[in-house]
Amino acid sequence: MEEKYNKQLQEARGKFLVFLQDEVTLPNGKTAVREMVLHPGAVAILAVTENQEIIFVKQYRYPVREVLFEIPAGKLEGKEDPFFSAQRELEEETGFQALQWEKLGTFYSTPGFSNEIMHLYLAQGLVQKKAHPDPDEIIEYQAIPFDQALRMASQGEIKDAKTMIGILWLAAGKKLTVD
Amino acid sequence: MEEKYNKQLQEARGKFLVFLQDEVTLPNGKTAVREMVLHPGAVAILAVTENQEIIFVKQYRYPVREVLFEIPAGKLEGKEDPFFSAQRELEEETGFQALQWEKLGTFYSTPGFSNEIMHLYLAQGLVQKKAHPDPDEIIEYQAIPFDQALRMASQGEIKDAKTMIGILWLAAGKKLTVD
Repeated sequence: MEEKYNKQLQEARGKFLVFLQDEVTLPNGKTAVREMVLHPGAVAILAVTENQEIIFVKQYRYPVREVLFEIPAGKLEGKEDPFFSAQRELEEETGFQALQWEKLGTFYSTPGFSNEIMHLYLAQGLVQKKAHPDPDEIIEYQAIPFDQALRMASQGEIKDAKTMIGILWLAAGKKLTVD
Repeated sequence: MEEKYNKQLQEARGKFLVFLQDEVTLPNGKTAVREMVLHPGAVAILAVTENQEIIFVKQYRYPVREVLFEIPAGKLEGKEDPFFSAQRELEEETGFQALQWEKLGTFYSTPGFSNEIMHLYLAQGLVQKKAHPDPDEIIEYQAIPFDQALRMASQGEIKDAKTMIGILWLAAGKKLTVD
């Protein structure tokens, strides 16, 4: 089913994204145009307090012109290990360190037009330090009880895919252990 | 928290993506660079048979150079209503029409660098017609029992975010009705 690179039609390089338009050859010998953005990869952290609250960050997202509730997340820097990146982002954005970490999964955010890969972690045993976000990030964090977060996800108040995956994973996981 | 458009630094136009790099002004008066891809929006369909199987499509995804298991999905065409688009994509990719439709939710795939919005539908009461994919799409469909699909999502065999959301939603939803 593989599609083979034939030639490049367009390339534009940003600070962290690369936009590409390639001509490819399909398995049936025909050609097609594929366009995409290359992304360095990212981490997201489902941080759960001992009272079963989820730590959210509230952040203006310029591409969608909206303030969104999301779990803490960030891009991988260079060849950084995703686990190290997750620890760094959680502390930068919320001031929390976590004593217990578990990898929940790895997924592609939108494989039809990007190679962005997202590493999702569960963080528990939270210890409050001091937040120190990037200078151009304006972020507030907020703890929301799990049941309320699940309701927010199912009612459209939480609109971010990785955040929905984190919350639903916890909800589905709870079910699995009950079965 | 709003960030205001200041000036455009880069623009590249593909067939369906637009890559943009903008300078913005932050609420604190400083400037920052934001880069993103504009996307027409998309639909995804969680189609469930009467035997609790999920309909998957298997498709080579050039941006990640992998064959992925995903639920049927596709881009919005023009000003098409998402529900019409969902009906069209399900039939094009799998040959199924559905008698019962329910909107599960709407979310941003990756709001940090794209405005792609995804409309997710649950489709039941499936009736088999004939598949007729786009000429440059090579797609096979496969029915997988729900419990197996949930296991595949939790074990990393399903790697696509929208597909994970669909499966986990069903898993979490089942739990909610049990509570």
